[in-house]
Amino acid sequence: MKPFHAYFQNINGTDTYPLDEVIYRSKVDNSLLEVHHDREALAERSPEEWKKLFAERRMSFKPEDMSGIWSKREMVLPEMPVEDIVTMREGWSPLFDAAPLAKELGIKSLKVKLCGNSHTGSFKDLGMTVLVSQVNHIIKKQIHEIDAVACASTGDTSAALSAYCAKAGIPSIVFLPAGKTSTAQLIQPISNGSIVLALDTDFDGCMKIVQEVTKDNRIYLANSMNSLRVEGQKTISPEICQELGWKVPDVVIIPGGNLGNVSALAKGFEDCKAMGLINKIPRIVVAQAEHANPFYQAYERGFDKLVPVQAKKTLASAIQIGNPVSYPKAVRAIQNTNGIVVSVTEEELANAAHRADRIGLYACPHTGVALGGLEKLVAAGKIDKEEAVIVISTAHGLKFTEFKVGYHEQKLEGIQSKFANPIFKAPAEIGAVMDILKKEMANRRR
Amino acid sequence: MKPFHAYFQNINGTDTYPLDEVIYRSKVDNSLLEVHHDREALAERSPEEWKKLFAERRMSFKPEDMSGIWSKREMVLPEMPVEDIVTMREGWSPLFDAAPLAKELGIKSLKVKLCGNSHTGSFKDLGMTVLVSQVNHIIKKQIHEIDAVACASTGDTSAALSAYCAKAGIPSIVFLPAGKTSTAQLIQPISNGSIVLALDTDFDGCMKIVQEVTKDNRIYLANSMNSLRVEGQKTISPEICQELGWKVPDVVIIPGGNLGNVSALAKGFEDCKAMGLINKIPRIVVAQAEHANPFYQAYERGFDKLVPVQAKKTLASAIQIGNPVSYPKAVRAIQNTNGIVVSVTEEELANAAHRADRIGLYACPHTGVALGGLEKLVAAGKIDKEEAVIVISTAHGLKFTEFKVGYHEQKLEGIQSKFANPIFKAPAEIGAVMDILKKEMANRRR
Repeated sequence: MKPFHAYFQNINGTDTYPLDEVIYRSKVDNSLLEVHHDREALAERSPEEWKKLFAERRMSFKPEDMSGIWSKREMVLPEMPVEDIVTMREGWSPLFDAAPLAKELGIKSLKVKLCGNSHTGSFKDLGMTVLVSQVNHIIKKQIHEIDAVACASTGDTSAALSAYCAKAGIPSIVFLPAGKTSTAQLIQPISNGSIVLALDTDFDGCMKIVQEVTKDNRIYLANSMNSLRVEGQKTISPEICQELGWKVPDVVIIPGGNLGNVSALAKGFEDCKAMGLINKIPRIVVAQAEHANPFYQAYERGFDKLVPVQAKKTLASAIQIGNPVSYPKAVRAIQNTNGIVVSVTEEELANAAHRADRIGLYACPHTGVALGGLEKLVAAGKIDKEEAVIVISTAHGLKFTEFKVGYHEQKLEGIQSKFANPIFKAPAEIGAVMDILKKEMANRRR
Repeated sequence: MKPFHAYFQNINGTDTYPLDEVIYRSKVDNSLLEVHHDREALAERSPEEWKKLFAERRMSFKPEDMSGIWSKREMVLPEMPVEDIVTMREGWSPLFDAAPLAKELGIKSLKVKLCGNSHTGSFKDLGMTVLVSQVNHIIKKQIHEIDAVACASTGDTSAALSAYCAKAGIPSIVFLPAGKTSTAQLIQPISNGSIVLALDTDFDGCMKIVQEVTKDNRIYLANSMNSLRVEGQKTISPEICQELGWKVPDVVIIPGGNLGNVSALAKGFEDCKAMGLINKIPRIVVAQAEHANPFYQAYERGFDKLVPVQAKKTLASAIQIGNPVSYPKAVRAIQNTNGIVVSVTEEELANAAHRADRIGLYACPHTGVALGGLEKLVAAGKIDKEEAVIVISTAHGLKFTEFKVGYHEQKLEGIQSKFANPIFKAPAEIGAVMDILKKEMANRRR
C-alpha cells in the first residue's frame, strides 16, 4: 500500500513543499499554497473500508478519534504523529433538526450544523486545531525553531488561535487596530494569555505588521493565507455525510465573507467523492450580507471578475469583507456544483435569525444570513420543495448578545423586528398573570 | 427479564406515583418526590452487557443514542418512547485534559468536564431534556392536558427550559422580579420565544406565583422541586466513568449552591455501582463561594443542621443561594463518599478561573469556585498528590464576559487580579513591536 502523503503546492501546480516547512507562498510565483493529498494512496482503501474505519473511531475515547477533524486524519494531515495533535474535541457539532422551520418554508427537510457549539464558540476551532498541531509538531520534533504563532484579527480567529496555543503551551500573538475594538471583543485571547498588541494603525496596517514579524519564520503566521486551516474546516463535509449515513444533502448553505469556508466546504465534498464515499456533490449556496457582497455582485455578472467593494457595517461582522481572499476557489465551488449566491439585507438576516430561535436555535447574525438566503431562494423557487437542505451555522449565539438584545428591544437601526418578544410586566397577582398567560400560550402552541 | 421501570417516591418511602402523573410532592406528607428505579431489573443485565450496549450506542447516529443522557435511557426514564424524546445532543461534553495545571499543582491528573459546551451553554441542558421530554410524552400520548411549562429563574434554568420547549413546540413561561434583571440576562428565553413576565415582587414572590399557576396541573412546574431533572444531570457520572474506560476518578469537585447537582452527581455514581459498572465511588468535593456557603458552615459543624444564611453578592451568581433545597441529599453524598466541603473567596475563585484560562480553558466563575477549592485542598494536603481529579465546569465562559473583562481590566472590587493580561499599545513599527514580543514570548513559553 502507498503511504498516505500530503504537501503544499502552489495554485498553478508548478512547485511543491513539505508540510513541515514554514512557508505560505510559492517561491516561484509568490501565489498562495494549498495542501494537496496523494489521492491515489487514499483511493487504495475501498469506500467500505473507510466507512468502517470512520464508524469505529466514533466508539473510541482516544483524543485523536474523538475529534471530528482528527478522526478523518488521513484526509487532513496524514503524516501527523498522534502525540503531536493539539485537540479540544472540535468537530462532531450537532446537526440540529429544524423540521418545524422546514415545514413553515415548505421544504422537505432542514438541518442546521451548529459549528459554534464548540470550545471557543465558532467554526474557527476546526481549522485551528490543524494549524496549531502542525506548529506543535515542528516544535516538538525540532524541525524548526518557532517562538510563537501570530494573527491579525479582532474576532473568532484570534479566539481559536489563543485557545489552541494555550492548550499546547505555545505563545500566541494577536494584532489589532488601537481604539477600534473593546476589551470585550478581545476577551477570549486576553483570557487565554495571548500577547495582544493594539497598534496605531488600521486593520490593513496590522496585516502588514503580522507579515513582517513572521518573515524570519520564527513566528508562525495563522491568518487565512495559511492553507492548513482549510484542511480542518473541510471535514464539515464528510462529517455531515457520515451522520446522514453517507447520503448527500441536496443543498448546503453557508455564509460567505473571505470565502475560505466556502472553498473548504467544497474541498471536503470533492475529497469524499474522490475516495468513493459519496457519489455526488451537493449544490453549494453562498449567502452574503448586502452590505458586503462583492461575491454576489460578481455572480450576478456571470463571474466576469471580482470587483472589490468598500464593505459597509453589517450585523454579520465576521463577513464584513470587501475583497475576499478565496474568491477564485469559491467561484469554482459555485460553478462545479450548480450553486447559487444570494444576498440578504440587514433586516432579512436579523429576522431570519430570530425566526429560527423560535424553534430552539440561538442563531448568530451570520447564520441569519444563511437562513435569510434560504428563505429568499425558496420564495424565488430556486430551491426546490423536494430538496434536503443543510445550513452551516458558524458561531454560537452567546457571542452576539448585543445583536439579540437590540433585536428584541427593537433598537436595531432601520430594522423592523418581526419576531421581537417583549417582556410582559405584571403585578404579582394570579389573576393578572393568568390573563396574560392564557392569551400568550394559545399564540405559541405549535 | 423484568421490564425496566421507574416511578416517583417520597423521601420516606411511604408512597409512590407513576412518572406520567403531574405531581411534585407526596400526597401523604407533602415531601418532595424522587425518581426511583427498579434496580433489580437493571441488575438482570450484566455489567459487561451494559458496557457493550453503551459502547455501541456511541456509533449510532440516532438522536436518542447521540445524546449523553438518552444513550443511558434505561437509567434515566426507561419507559420513555424514543419518539417523544426532545433532545439537542446534550451530554458527551468534552473532558478537558488540564495536565499543565495538574503539574503546577502537583497532582497526578486533572480533567475538567466542560458541561457548558452545550446548546444553551450550561449543564442545565442535561436535566431539561428529561423534564421537557416527559412533558412532551404526556402531551403527545394525551395522558393529561398541559398548556405550558413554567419556572421562576433569571439564569441558566430559564435558558435551558425555553430552548427545549421551543424545540418541542411547547409554550414556556419564565417569571422574574421586575427591575432586577436586564434584557441581556434574559435574552436566551426571550429569543427562544418564552412568555417572560417581570413581576412586581422579589424572587420569593416569583416562586409563589409559579407554584400558584402550576397548581391545577395544566401548567407544568420546571423548578428544582421537580425531580426529573436530577435523572438527566446524574448521567455526568457514568459518562465520566465510561470515557475513562469504566475507571473511577479519585475525586470529583463540583460547585454547590442549591446542591441539586451534588445529589445528582452522587446518584449517578451510586446507580453505576448498583449496576456493577464501577466498584467504588469517588470522593465528592463541594466547593462553595464564601459569600454563600451555608453548606460549608454546616460541614464545619459536623453537619449538625442547615442554618440558612443571607447570601451575599458573589461573582458566582448561579450559586448565590442561602437556603439550599437539596441539603439532606448533599450531606448524604459527602458522608457516603468521604467527601469534603470547601469555601473560596471572591479573589480565590477569580484567580483560579483565570489561571485555568492560561492553559486553554475559558472558565466561568462557578468553575473558578471548584478550581479554587482544588487549589486550597491540595495546599492543605487534603487532596493527595497521587489522586486523579475531575472538576465539573457548569457553564460556558462566553456567558460571563463582564466577569472576564472586569478581571483583566483589574476592576473587580476588592480583587487583586494575579493573572491579568494587559493589552500592549504600540506604534505600527516592527522594531517597537519586536521589543514587546521578545520579552513576552519568553515569559509565556511552557
